[in-house]
Amino acid sequence: MEVKRIALIPGDGIGKEVIPEGVKVLKAAAEAEGFKLEFTNFDFGADRYLRDNGHLIDDDELEELKKYDAIYLGAVGDPRVPAGVLEHGILLKLRFDLDLYLNLRPIKLFDEKYCPLKNKTTADIDFTVIRENTEDLYISAGGFLRKGTPQEIATQEMIATRFGVERAIRYAFEEARRINKKKTVALCDKSNVLTYAHNLWLRAFNEIGEEYPDIKKEHYYVDAICMKMVRSPEIFDVIVTPNMFGDIITDLGAEIQGGMGTAVSGNVNPNGISMFEPVHGSAPDIAGQGIANPIAAILSAAQMMDVLGFETASKKIEKAVIRAMEEKETTKDMGGTLNTAQAGDVIAKFVKEA
Amino acid sequence: MEVKRIALIPGDGIGKEVIPEGVKVLKAAAEAEGFKLEFTNFDFGADRYLRDNGHLIDDDELEELKKYDAIYLGAVGDPRVPAGVLEHGILLKLRFDLDLYLNLRPIKLFDEKYCPLKNKTTADIDFTVIRENTEDLYISAGGFLRKGTPQEIATQEMIATRFGVERAIRYAFEEARRINKKKTVALCDKSNVLTYAHNLWLRAFNEIGEEYPDIKKEHYYVDAICMKMVRSPEIFDVIVTPNMFGDIITDLGAEIQGGMGTAVSGNVNPNGISMFEPVHGSAPDIAGQGIANPIAAILSAAQMMDVLGFETASKKIEKAVIRAMEEKETTKDMGGTLNTAQAGDVIAKFVKEA
Ligand SMILES: CC(C)[C@H](C(=O)O)[C@@H](O)C(=O)O
Ligand SMILES: CC(C)[C@H](C(=O)O)[C@@H](O)C(=O)O
Repeated sequence: MEVKRIALIPGDGIGKEVIPEGVKVLKAAAEAEGFKLEFTNFDFGADRYLRDNGHLIDDDELEELKKYDAIYLGAVGDPRVPAGVLEHGILLKLRFDLDLYLNLRPIKLFDEKYCPLKNKTTADIDFTVIRENTEDLYISAGGFLRKGTPQEIATQEMIATRFGVERAIRYAFEEARRINKKKTVALCDKSNVLTYAHNLWLRAFNEIGEEYPDIKKEHYYVDAICMKMVRSPEIFDVIVTPNMFGDIITDLGAEIQGGMGTAVSGNVNPNGISMFEPVHGSAPDIAGQGIANPIAAILSAAQMMDVLGFETASKKIEKAVIRAMEEKETTKDMGGTLNTAQAGDVIAKFVKEA
Repeated sequence: MEVKRIALIPGDGIGKEVIPEGVKVLKAAAEAEGFKLEFTNFDFGADRYLRDNGHLIDDDELEELKKYDAIYLGAVGDPRVPAGVLEHGILLKLRFDLDLYLNLRPIKLFDEKYCPLKNKTTADIDFTVIRENTEDLYISAGGFLRKGTPQEIATQEMIATRFGVERAIRYAFEEARRINKKKTVALCDKSNVLTYAHNLWLRAFNEIGEEYPDIKKEHYYVDAICMKMVRSPEIFDVIVTPNMFGDIITDLGAEIQGGMGTAVSGNVNPNGISMFEPVHGSAPDIAGQGIANPIAAILSAAQMMDVLGFETASKKIEKAVIRAMEEKETTKDMGGTLNTAQAGDVIAKFVKEA
């Protein structure tokens, strides 16, 4: 029997409540499909940070994590810790140090009743954003001059490398070919203003695009793409974009697909370990009440199964989630009456029945 | 009789078609209100650039422009000129060299039928974005190393100064007080990741905010604000944000208020000349057909009148536009049957009747 080992990082707040539901559903899917998943818990997050002298993730732990087949992350962030510390020390550290250079964010509406847009069907909102995940404004380079004075200036560096940009763009073209839908890749940048960093993106896109004559190329400035995502999301297939704009447009995407409750984020290194997480945060305002919606975490688990090669298990989880939505067997935020654990139970049951 | 002198820069594409309609409506408003507007045409744009050896705007012309009371701009951009050239050489040059440090972008839904969101009323979508307009990623600083090789890297610099950030934030607080609605200013940044440039923003916002105890302060990361703008735009009053994010969220704002057809952008220097423009571009695909929607240009003219102190004229233009929408006396993109000139005629007539 095939065995995969999953490192769990529930993290903070509702992360700790939704990851167990994902595990519940994963176990049901593995049992149904005849493979085995082993889970190991890692306690990185605010509690550990506060208890353990500011501990985040050290080099040994990073090496340890690399031995797993995948990482399944809840969320990090806690009001007791200064903003940015846990994000940088855990989430961004894992993305950068494990070279998780692709952030795969499917934008998919599962049920029209959750869509905030007029006249859009589930067929209209179904595309993928490939966000470059290791460069751009996220490299934490910058500084202050005369900090705290009226003459203060602060800088922040955006960096793009041909190496980093090319591997993201190439993946996008391959993905458009693989999913074989509209066979279109759209670049989202701001090369009319960012005439250095995004000029590199635009040139790389045009050059690599020539190797994919079967794939249509489109190009949108980031401001224009936000409008299009609201007005005519049906035009999109695969979008590739630098890190910062990817952050922005995928949150907008999460909203048009019905909100954070269903949005997933796969941080992927095709040659190494990958990490899967719901897009939502730790939501300190509702943490500890047992009311968090586990669906995004459960769909992240489905994405993990897909990337690990268990496509049928992935599809079964996705179908079970859609059934739960249709039957309104959901938490309150999606119109149901269940608590977090009950919502997870229902989906695990639907996976077994599938 | 009070006289104001307006410099017209129709620019490219549909810019040349919509500015004359704005002028038509402005003349009607000035006549109705008993003041006088004088218009002088400047031919900056693609035709001039191509005819005149790459001419954009030179220093003498810039000095000349400073003598006017306001600049009324159509749009720049033309497929015959490399992307970025006209944007940098005209639009951004004017914003920077005239120190137009505030970009005022009201997000206002005039008529529910144009809103792409479910269940939102005109009362729900009515807020203002103050976009800092002279710093951030727009300063054109950056470079290439090993350009054109597989080892290429490109950099782009984001700069924030206390001076530049403070004047934008201060204006936002004053504006929230002046309009006296929700008395709330929201900062939109990404200070959890951009720990230098946006940390300066966050500190400045908190410090200056203390001087405005009567104004509520809110803080959103840019990704979160995009979601909120779609889910619950009714929570916003005044938003202040750095240049690049301002570009993005105001286009999203334009879309939720019914699309580019009604979105306006005031580039303001409270101590000097200001420039008013529709948010839409030159739209080469529909230019020359007489079908462009002049409403955004006309509402920009209303914004110009407001800033120049002709508040009644401004209100009259806005009301005339709303009436045109209600009566579907609009161009095709807004459901009407009129061409550009007819749509302008109707609004000018409604201004006179107001
Ligand atoms: C928490 C934050 C650092 C992160 C990001 O900006 O990438 C989040 O918004 C995301 O999109 O995963
Ligand atoms: C044309 C472009 C340079 C400009 C910008 O990015 O500011 C436009 O998008 C705008 O918002 O006015």
